[in-house]
This record gives sequence, C-alpha cells and structure tokens, in this order.
Amino acid sequence: MKLSARNVVPGKVLSVTKGATTAHVRIEIAGGQVVTSAITNEAVEELGLVEGGKAYAVIKASDVMVAVD
Amino acid sequence: MKLSARNVVPGKVLSVTKGATTAHVRIEIAGGQVVTSAITNEAVEELGLVEGGKAYAVIKASDVMVAVD
Amino acid sequence: MKLSARNVVPGKVLSVTKGATTAHVRIEIAGGQVVTSAITNEAVEELGLVEGGKAYAVIKASDVMVAVD
Amino acid sequence: MKLSARNVVPGKVLSVTKGATTAHVRIEIAGGQVVTSAITNEAVEELGLVEGGKAYAVIKASDVMVAVD
Amino acid sequence: MKLSARNVVPGKVLSVTKGATTAHVRIEIAGGQVVTSAITNEAVEELGLVEGGKAYAVIKASDVMVAVD
Amino acid sequence: MKLSARNVVPGKVLSVTKGATTAHVRIEIAGGQVVTSAITNEAVEELGLVEGGKAYAVIKASDVMVAVD
Repeated sequence: MKLSARNVVPGKVLSVTKGATTAHVRIEIAGGQVVTSAITNEAVEELGLVEGGKAYAVIKASDVMVAVD
Repeated sequence: MKLSARNVVPGKVLSVTKGATTAHVRIEIAGGQVVTSAITNEAVEELGLVEGGKAYAVIKASDVMVAVD
Repeated sequence: MKLSARNVVPGKVLSVTKGATTAHVRIEIAGGQVVTSAITNEAVEELGLVEGGKAYAVIKASDVMVAVD
Repeated sequence: MKLSARNVVPGKVLSVTKGATTAHVRIEIAGGQVVTSAITNEAVEELGLVEGGKAYAVIKASDVMVAVD
Repeated sequence: MKLSARNVVPGKVLSVTKGATTAHVRIEIAGGQVVTSAITNEAVEELGLVEGGKAYAVIKASDVMVAVD
Repeated sequence: MKLSARNVVPGKVLSVTKGATTAHVRIEIAGGQVVTSAITNEAVEELGLVEGGKAYAVIKASDVMVAVD
C-alpha cells in the first residue's frame, strides 16, 4: 500500500505503553532520534508491535508544525 | 516556550515551497531523513524560514501513526 | 504495509482538484457516500491518482469526531 | 449547526468502549463499512451515544489521507 | 447538530483569505483573541462566511496542545 | 521557541484529569471561554501543569474547523 502521507520514517520500536484504550509507542529513527506515537491498543495488537521490532512512523505533512529558536 | 507535543525534532530547512495560502517546508533531520511540513505562508514569513536555516519539526504524538511491512 | 490507522476505506476516485500546493481528492466509498481528502499535489502525482482509479480513504481514529442531531 | 468539515457521514453506533479518558466509538456507515472514532468520555456522555443510536462520523478533509495498492 | 469536539468557541469573522484550494479564516473570539482556521474554499462558500458574520471556531481536544513559558 | 502554529492562546489551567496514558487539560482563556486539550500524561508532568498555572492553548490552523448556526 502506497500512502499520500509525506512522512514515512523507518525505525525500531523502543517501547509500547498501553493505556485503557490508547497506547504510546516510541520509535527510534535514524540518528537516535525518538518519535512518540499515540495509537489505539487495538492497532498495537493488530500490527504485532513489540520492543525491537521494525516499524515506520507515519505522519501527514499537514500535521507537522515548524519551530525556530 | 515548552510544548506538550512529544516530538520536537531538530533539523535544517532544505526547501520552502509557497502556494497560494499553504507552504510546504522540507526539513532534513538526523540520518538524512527528510520531513515534509505543510504550514501557512504567514508562518513561513513570521519564522523567517529560509533554505539552510535551523528549524524543528514539531509533531503531536496523536498525529503520529505506526506502520509495519 | 499495515497501518495503525483504524479507518482504511476502499473506494473509487471521483475527482482530483489541484491547488498551488494542496489537492482535494473526492473518493466515492460504499453506499455512494463521498469522502473528501486534502493532500499534497506531490502525493497525487506519486500515487498516480486519476478519476475512476481505485483508492482508499485512510483516517486515524483520533481524527474522527462524532455528531448527533 | 453547519460545519466546514467536508465529511459528515451518517451511520449507526455499533459499540462504545470507554477508557480512562478516551472512548472508542465504532459507527457503521453505508455499505456496512465501519468507522472507528476516538473521542473523550465526556463527549460520549454529552451526546448520549449508545449502541444502535444514529450518529455521524465527522472528519476534516485535511485529516483524510489517500492510499493505493 | 451536537458535536463531540470539546471546543466550540463563538466569535465573529474578521477576514477570509482564499487560496487555490485552501482558505484562511480569522475569527475574533471573546477578549479580542483571534483564532486562525484553514478550511476548504468549498466550505467557505457553503457556510457563506463573510467578514463580520457570526461563526464558531471548532477544535477537537486531541488537536489542542499546551505550552508554558 | 517560535512556532508555526497560528493559534497560541494564553490562559490559566482550570483542571488536569489524567487517564491511563492521556490527560485532559482545561484552560480558561480570555472572556471566560474554556478550551479542552488532550495531551499525554508525560507532557503534563514535563510541563508541570497544575491548577491555576499559566499556560497556552496551541492549535495549528489546519486543525480549526468553522461552524455557523
């Protein structure tokens, strides 16, 4: 499946923290940068996300802000 | 200013492409990964975003999806 | 690629309207319902989106609101 | 109230699953397609969302991605 | 129509700036605060948005970040 | 840090309600209007958000919808 989202960033799952309905998944991408995602618990199970597994952080361009010092 | 967004990723502006109201800003982050952002033209001017300038890609955790092959 | 987004809805492209940087893509899904998406012109080209083509509307659960009369 | 969101899709509530603060509401729309929404528990109560009740899935065009096989 | 979005803020339209596909609508809310929205040109026409008209800024709680100095 | 988000609205924290992973923060802005935000528990701790504290509600323009009666 090819996706319109402009940002499909490869990485490795560092941790999965499940809440009651929402899980936080931390993904280490190139350069040691860590990206945090909030997805449903259901998605965690369906994708079989586990620590150490390969995963992509996927972000629509319109959801990316820019900041400067 | 400290922000609740979990993802504040440092990088360098690769390009700024202005549309009629919306601009696309490409930011190179660690490891050569490129992140594309869609922000208002007004924000581009206010932040003084130019090619080669330092900038952060800022993304709320709830806007990050996860994918696996 | 399997995606954490809970909503991956199959349909057919009805129209593609390109702006300066942002395109509006209308997708007809089951029951004749039409879903409108706003994505980058770049994504339209990369995905080869054309009228009549098969496509999915993909929506993260946290981006879906609910309303009642 | 008329809303700028381009996608206001009528359907029927299939299930409501409350977490600690976030609830997942599954809505069956035309053609048997199911849309999952993540909203606050507070909104579930305020809208009186119950299984079998009529509801709309409301989605801003800029939150809809497109994918192709 | 009652909406799950937690933030439905009444105000007055200050300006409407149409791009090729996306319009920026500035709404003055209580206390003189101005909120900027990016919606489709189509929505501007459908809602009949004009300077001085009454309008609400509608924002899902999961789209609101928090910052501190 | 200067942010591309068009809406940085000053206010005072009314309440913080933590869930398992997601917290709801209500902020009173000018004119007594209350804005509800959903952020991670981690962000609440990192920003030291407490009732009565000063805080900004930060919202990207593309996440603001418009409604009319």
